[in-house]
Amino acid sequence: MSPELEHPQKAIGWAARVPCGVLSPFKFSGRATGDKDVKLKVLYCGICHTDIHNIRNDWGVTTFPVVPGHEIVGEVIEVGSGTEKTKVGDRVGMGCLIGSCGTCHSCLHHEENYCPDMVLTYGGRPYYDGSTTYGGYSDIMVVEERFTVLIPDSLPLAGAAPLLCAGITVYSPLRFHGLDKPGVHVGLVGLGGLGHVAVKFAKAMGARVTVISSSPEKREEALTRLGADSFLVSTDMSQIQAATGTLDGIIDTVSAVHSLLPLISLLKTRGKIIVVGAPDKPLQLPMLPMIFGAKGIYGSCVGGMKETQEMMDFAAKHNITTDIELVPMDYVNTALDRLAKGDVKYRFVIDVGNTL
Amino acid sequence: MSPELEHPQKAIGWAARVPCGVLSPFKFSGRATGDKDVKLKVLYCGICHTDIHNIRNDWGVTTFPVVPGHEIVGEVIEVGSGTEKTKVGDRVGMGCLIGSCGTCHSCLHHEENYCPDMVLTYGGRPYYDGSTTYGGYSDIMVVEERFTVLIPDSLPLAGAAPLLCAGITVYSPLRFHGLDKPGVHVGLVGLGGLGHVAVKFAKAMGARVTVISSSPEKREEALTRLGADSFLVSTDMSQIQAATGTLDGIIDTVSAVHSLLPLISLLKTRGKIIVVGAPDKPLQLPMLPMIFGAKGIYGSCVGGMKETQEMMDFAAKHNITTDIELVPMDYVNTALDRLAKGDVKYRFVIDVGNTL
Repeated sequence: MSPELEHPQKAIGWAARVPCGVLSPFKFSGRATGDKDVKLKVLYCGICHTDIHNIRNDWGVTTFPVVPGHEIVGEVIEVGSGTEKTKVGDRVGMGCLIGSCGTCHSCLHHEENYCPDMVLTYGGRPYYDGSTTYGGYSDIMVVEERFTVLIPDSLPLAGAAPLLCAGITVYSPLRFHGLDKPGVHVGLVGLGGLGHVAVKFAKAMGARVTVISSSPEKREEALTRLGADSFLVSTDMSQIQAATGTLDGIIDTVSAVHSLLPLISLLKTRGKIIVVGAPDKPLQLPMLPMIFGAKGIYGSCVGGMKETQEMMDFAAKHNITTDIELVPMDYVNTALDRLAKGDVKYRFVIDVGNTL
Repeated sequence: MSPELEHPQKAIGWAARVPCGVLSPFKFSGRATGDKDVKLKVLYCGICHTDIHNIRNDWGVTTFPVVPGHEIVGEVIEVGSGTEKTKVGDRVGMGCLIGSCGTCHSCLHHEENYCPDMVLTYGGRPYYDGSTTYGGYSDIMVVEERFTVLIPDSLPLAGAAPLLCAGITVYSPLRFHGLDKPGVHVGLVGLGGLGHVAVKFAKAMGARVTVISSSPEKREEALTRLGADSFLVSTDMSQIQAATGTLDGIIDTVSAVHSLLPLISLLKTRGKIIVVGAPDKPLQLPMLPMIFGAKGIYGSCVGGMKETQEMMDFAAKHNITTDIELVPMDYVNTALDRLAKGDVKYRFVIDVGNTL
């Protein structure tokens, strides 16, 4: 269904009309609040690197106009008659997905994020009713309750928003791959939006954490402020060599094409690298060191809704939020430019509620 | 210690003196049978593709002269006073390793094959006593008892020899990665020395088996004679597409550089490819399909001694041997040439006992 068709719920957001275009105000409409839906007034929305990929149509799947945003928190202003956990006034979050088939193997195992019929929060295929999906750079959203999570009262909302993507993206592989306990030594590659919150989660889970970065100047930040146990400069072969075979697993958050060989060498036998950044060109995979060490490389993509709620509750228990720079809605184009250059510590969050 | 130095145990084998050189008879010596050693008269030795890599010094680690051979079966002709399971006259096998530290994490977990101080059966670093290690293209071997396995009486010795490398190389990842049971659908890439025995093991374990090969003419062989359930031509994109998302795991035995993308597409969500061939150049690893399907790629290298014995007993129970072409010792250079061209079904085995 084309975006010009009218639906009952009027909304306003900021959209890119063409690939690489600047974002500007955009009126659209969506479905009315259904039985199992909640409607929320968006308060904050994080800016994810994926937003840039989508605006640029890097993956060739973007539908324009695109209203980005999938790190969304808001206040519930209406609930359908068939909702189960949510009431008006609740603080809820939404992440990267707003629909899934509910019947496939992944859905039945709480991994809606791997459902082949998953609907992305914005910019992907149309929603089941034919409406286009628009993201959280907008004032109002209507979404199935089962794709929301409750945000505990103790968590500041703005800093919690990026947990809905950046947070769960690193939390899920830490849990799934058993890198979530004392006695385990985890490497975290890249100290950006994903990496900095990965340090916080891995430390809260009890793991020993080594940050691996191409930027030597991040050492102090990693060790002193974020509490990592050690720091390696990824391009310093003497440092890498001294740490050979010391890591049980690595969460690799770098989305630029990069060399896997030094990371493979850091792993213990049977260690694993889990890539959660999204390099758009193939990486070079040298097989001999993989074979001789029985090592593995995995991908991982956000998490299911049950796990996202668990992550949010864990964050509340351990006072974990993302470190953010709060910006007004009309700063979004500047923020996207700065993010593309890595100029943010660590996540832009748009103050949608007060500035749209 | 240089190979010229004399040790008590005299032996004769066939060696390459220089990279790419033809093999010819070569006299050498090794240690006397120690307390924990057994001495065997070599009866049969398989020719593994790795032998070619070593003779060519493809990996830059070969010590010349090199006597290849690590798929060895023989008859015990002497045992040390401290041996535990072996007596004179027993039929035993030896594989790729003849030494390990015994104290590292891998050794303590029955994975001597990943011990950083592991000693290869031939061509690698010297043995602990300084002697050079020579492989099974020779008449006599002295080896620590713990690096031998007993071969059940029911197994024909010549066909059992390649199980010591080709067999355990595919058996171990089938077990470790849970591809060893009914209800699991396994893909096997490459129908050569490793692949054909992988079909036999996977079927005996109860898995459903799809053979994936670049050679359409292998279909009948795979389905009718080896008992695979289905067959895919790896270069036929319509066949690959029709089977998208159907495999729980893939054992990839191809040692030439090849494309991973079609294999990744065949996997279910959370499926894994285990590479046991040894491509000497990096493979291209496209990360997006790995991430969106939470897929993994692993390496795996032979198996530990406990598992090798288990594999041999399993083979005996299910009447599994490799399909071989038995050749005399002086045919070895021709056999190596033919193997390099893939001209063998499926493994050359040298009749060492009768022809050296």
